[in-house]
This record gives sequence, structure tokens and C-alpha cells, in this order.
Amino acid sequence: MDSKDYMKLVLDAASKGHSTWTNPKVGAVIVKNNQILAIGHHEKFGENHAEINALSKLSKLTDAKGATLYVTLEPCSHFGKTPPCVEKIVQAGIKKVVIGQIDPNPIVSGFGVDYLKEHNVNVEINDIYPKFNRSYNFFYKNNRPLITIKYAMTLDGKINHIRNNRSILTESAAYMDSQKLRSQNQAILIGENTFKIDDPELTVRLNNMKFSPIRLILIKDINQVDLSEKIFKVNSEIWFLSKTKPKKDFSKNVSIFVDDWTPNKILKLLTEHSIQSLLIEGGSSLQANFISSNLVDNFVVYIAPKIFGGQGLPAIFGEELSKIMNLKNLQVKNLKPDLKITAERDTNVHRNN
Amino acid sequence: MDSKDYMKLVLDAASKGHSTWTNPKVGAVIVKNNQILAIGHHEKFGENHAEINALSKLSKLTDAKGATLYVTLEPCSHFGKTPPCVEKIVQAGIKKVVIGQIDPNPIVSGFGVDYLKEHNVNVEINDIYPKFNRSYNFFYKNNRPLITIKYAMTLDGKINHIRNNRSILTESAAYMDSQKLRSQNQAILIGENTFKIDDPELTVRLNNMKFSPIRLILIKDINQVDLSEKIFKVNSEIWFLSKTKPKKDFSKNVSIFVDDWTPNKILKLLTEHSIQSLLIEGGSSLQANFISSNLVDNFVVYIAPKIFGGQGLPAIFGEELSKIMNLKNLQVKNLKPDLKITAERDTNVHRNN
Repeated sequence: MDSKDYMKLVLDAASKGHSTWTNPKVGAVIVKNNQILAIGHHEKFGENHAEINALSKLSKLTDAKGATLYVTLEPCSHFGKTPPCVEKIVQAGIKKVVIGQIDPNPIVSGFGVDYLKEHNVNVEINDIYPKFNRSYNFFYKNNRPLITIKYAMTLDGKINHIRNNRSILTESAAYMDSQKLRSQNQAILIGENTFKIDDPELTVRLNNMKFSPIRLILIKDINQVDLSEKIFKVNSEIWFLSKTKPKKDFSKNVSIFVDDWTPNKILKLLTEHSIQSLLIEGGSSLQANFISSNLVDNFVVYIAPKIFGGQGLPAIFGEELSKIMNLKNLQVKNLKPDLKITAERDTNVHRNN
Repeated sequence: MDSKDYMKLVLDAASKGHSTWTNPKVGAVIVKNNQILAIGHHEKFGENHAEINALSKLSKLTDAKGATLYVTLEPCSHFGKTPPCVEKIVQAGIKKVVIGQIDPNPIVSGFGVDYLKEHNVNVEINDIYPKFNRSYNFFYKNNRPLITIKYAMTLDGKINHIRNNRSILTESAAYMDSQKLRSQNQAILIGENTFKIDDPELTVRLNNMKFSPIRLILIKDINQVDLSEKIFKVNSEIWFLSKTKPKKDFSKNVSIFVDDWTPNKILKLLTEHSIQSLLIEGGSSLQANFISSNLVDNFVVYIAPKIFGGQGLPAIFGEELSKIMNLKNLQVKNLKPDLKITAERDTNVHRNN
């Protein structure tokens, strides 16, 4: 095995971290004399980092003396939820560290490498995981969460058969896929109509989910909220973005933020809370607002084998777009009987239409 | 080679007929002592049928004596554009005829087989081409043309960015595909708004097209038609379906049918003219009318990597559908950068939504 193989191995290890929440997924492997001594990954937010997990798996810590550490992300140099990894690496006598990517988080970016070099550790930096930890990387590059819009529509582009009534469009394969999509986002946003008409729980019904996405509801008047809505049945975090101040108390898992909310203000709030990814599930006019503010990065669209025709409610409706939004990388997955199309914002193309 | 191989061979031969117009595509092969003596197919409407083409390819006609004829469709027994094939088959001394499918056309259905049997020819009938000559078979089974609706839309289900302006959505691969789709239909229908706003030629820009689809335009008042529209630049057949009688003469390729047109009346007219397939290209409200009349069999939808959002014109708009239309067999083709989705009417499923 060569350096490239080890870098692939640590990426596989990193991918196993399903509960890292806002932390990046990280994998680490310790190699000496072409022998793999230990593999570790960051398992859960607030617990040991990948490097520490790898070191702890050694038969004895002195085995690390003179070894090479391969790690997907620059080791941290600060006291966060756990002590800095670079100190442990130096203490263990690691001779060389091969890093997949410099940490984009400004608190640590470059400082880990500096510390290692100052302590005579040989450092090699690659830049080989551009798509891994996508929302983590996006967040620190753009200083706002990565935004995905999701909707299910018929083959004629309608999301509801009769307005102000919920239509269930897709079947089980698409449903399971949309649950996975929720689990990959740190926050889910819906508007007032979707809240009232669909009455969703907005939870992730998958096993092994340690951290549920924060459920955000944009609402005019918090005091008009019906406490019998399904969303209150589940005890994970709910944030109401309300224009009015609450006159009563809500349960502990409910936070209320009062402002005259716009897409940009919502993103600022999320950024302040270090939320790196946002899934906007509806309704179509809320989604239109984010699109016309030029803030949407990804589309996930499920297409059901139906035609609603006539007066059915169209997808993305309401606010007029001054400019056409161009997409790229249309990808299709057959989730029989439905289809899933994904696409990304295309900032480079400007066609005239 | 066995009988199955020969039946596959004749189907391949049949598929070569690109100019059969309202005639079915037919292939024939003559076999004696496990030797293929001749292969033929119906090449062009009004010219020799496949069986006659195969017979004419023999070194000498007497070779056919005692041979077996494999043919995709029941040989004809009537004088149409050409004399009946069954007479020639009997005269040539063919001993056995293996038929892919009984002709669904009531003028010939079963009569060809009867004639052969009466003249001591051994007849074997298979039913192995359910999807071949689809519109021909559909027409004689349902006594109306097979109807396909085609539109191009954005990923948010819009067909126009600004209403009453044409948006070009798709690129060259989808354009070529839509030309092929036109060539596979015997008539193309558009409504008045599409006629005025898009100003299309409605022609097929492909090589080797001997028969162009008839161009149908549904219009309120034939006397308001602007003779400078592009459709008049090409000399193939145009039918105006007008509510009013014309006060002036049009060129020879223009026919005017006057009635208070409905989808059912349009189909009756086409059926009377033996038109077996109709492609409805727009606009969205004309398509909605045919869908709500429960007359649409196929959908071809091109999806462009764009979002029009806001006030863009939605696909299939206008008339309300009392019932959801269910589709089946969603198929996707990547026509980069666009997608093509095809679907068929599903008459068996009645889900509650």
C-alpha cells in the first residue's frame, strides 16, 4: 500500500461517522514500516476526534513512536469539546502527518500544521476531498449554510392537486430517500402554510440518528400557533421565526426568534448558531423567496407518475424571478415508481432565454 | 437458425421501413431447407409490400416452391394501393407461412389467413410483436389515433419565463430527439396561442423523411390568420380547425375544417382520415383539454436545468382535472444538459390522493 491507498482508507473510516452533527467527519490511520497499526474515526459530536481514537486503539502508545499518521482533515490545535489533537500527536512521538485537507474553520485553519512543524513533525498536505464534508466546507468558505430545496411534484410540475390540501405524491422508496436527505441536514425550514396544511412532524424516522435537524417554522404570529400540531409531539429542537413576541410560555425544546424575517436574516441567524446546512421543504412561495434572493445551492426534486393538470398548485410559485436560475449536473435516480432529480446551482452559465 | 431466429430477423427487416406513413412496417423472409433465400421489407407507402419485395429478390421465382415464408404481419388479401399478397404467395408455391401478428385492420384481419388455408398453405400464427407498429395497432383496436403530449419544462415545471413570450428551454440533443418524435407521428396539433407566440414551422428537419406529419392548428377565426406566419413557408399539408368559415382562398396544401371543435371532434376527424397518431405540442391549456377528456396515452417531457420560479407559465394549465391522471413506466434518458422523461397512461391504478 502507498500513501494514496492510505488516504483512501482514512476516507472510508471517516465516512462511518454518522453522528458528528456540526463537526466534520474525520478518519485517521497510524502506519509504521508499511504496517497499519490502528484506524480510528470521529464517531459522535462532543466525543473523541479521529486521531485520538486511532491512538487509543494501539496495543501500547509507544508503538506510535516514529510512525506516520494519515488523517483526512488537519488535526485541531484548540480546546473545543476535547483537548487539542496536535499535542497528543507530538506526545506520542508521531514522526510524520499526512493531511487530506486543511481545516477551513478559521479557529483552527493552519494552526494545527504550524504546531506540528514547530514540534519537528514532518507534515504533508494534500487537497483531495473537495466533495467530502460538503456543508462544513461550504459554511466556512461562504459564511452561511449550504441550502437545499426539496419538493415532490407530478410530471406536469404540480405539488398539490387542490390548493390548501396536502397531496401525498410519492411512494415508499422516495419517502425513505427524503428521510435520508433530512438526516444529512442540520436544520429544516418550512413556511406557515406548509405548517398548517401539511401538519408535519419534521423528524427523521431513521435508526441510529443521534442528532435530529433543528425544525424551523417561519410564522407571522407565534401567538396563533395551535399547540396540538404534530410538531410538538416530538421533543427535539423547534425554532419559531415569528414577527410577533410570544405572550405565553412554550416547552423547553421550543425557541422563539422575533424579527421581520427575510431569507438573508434567517441565514444570518443560522450562521450565528454555526448551522452549516439548511433543507427548505416548502411551501413553494417560501422556496421562491430564497431562490429570488439567489441563496439556493441544491435542488432535490421527486417526480411522481401523475398528472394533476388544471388548477393544481405549481412548484416554486409566488415571487417573480427577475433572472432565470441556471442549474448544472442534473442527475436522476429511479425510485420506482417515482424519480429523483438532483441539480446544483450553476454560477458560471449565463444564457439568454 | 430456428423459427424464433427467423421471426427476429423479419422484425429487424421490418424496422428498416422509414417511409411507410400510415401503413405498418412489415418484414418478410423466404426460407427453404434451412437456407435464407430472400429478405424483404415494406419500404414506402404506396409501393410493394414486404412479401412481394422478398419474392422479387429470389434468383428465380420457382425457388419459392415448397419454401416457408416468415412475415411479421398477416399478408393482405385485398386490393389497396397494390394487389393482394396472398395471391402471389399461393402462385409462388409457398408451402408454409409463419405470421408474427394478425392484421388488426378489419378490412384484412383474418381474411389473409383464410385465403392461404383455403389454398392449402400451412399457416402458423404467433403473437409476438405487441409494441411494434404501436400506433397502427392502437388505431384499429381503439378506433382513434394514439395521442402523445410533448412539452419542455424547467425543473420547477414551467414552460415559459414570461407569459406570452416563447422561452427556448432545451439544447441540441433534446431538439434532435423532438424532431425524431415528430417524425414518428402522422399529425401534429397546436393551439392558437402557440401558433401566434411560437410561430413554428412544425416540420421535421431530418433527412430521408418522405412523409411529413400533417400540421394541425386549432384556431378561432381562420380569417384572422396572418399569412406571413412561418408555417406557410413549407409546402406540406396544413389543416386549420376553425370555428368560422374562410372568406378567402388559401394555397393548395391548406385544408380548412369548420366546426365548434372539441378534443373528441378532432379525434373523429383524424380517425375518418385514417390518421393513427397525433402529437400535441402545445399550448398547455390545449393539452389540459385533451387530458381532462381522458384522451392522452403518452407523455414526452424534456426537463431543462433551469428554474423560472415566480410567475412563469406552468406546464398543463387551464382546465381543472376532476380526477388525477395516473401514469406508468416512467423512463429517463439523459440528453445533456437536459433530461427526457417518457410515461404512459396507467388505466389500472386508482389511488386516492
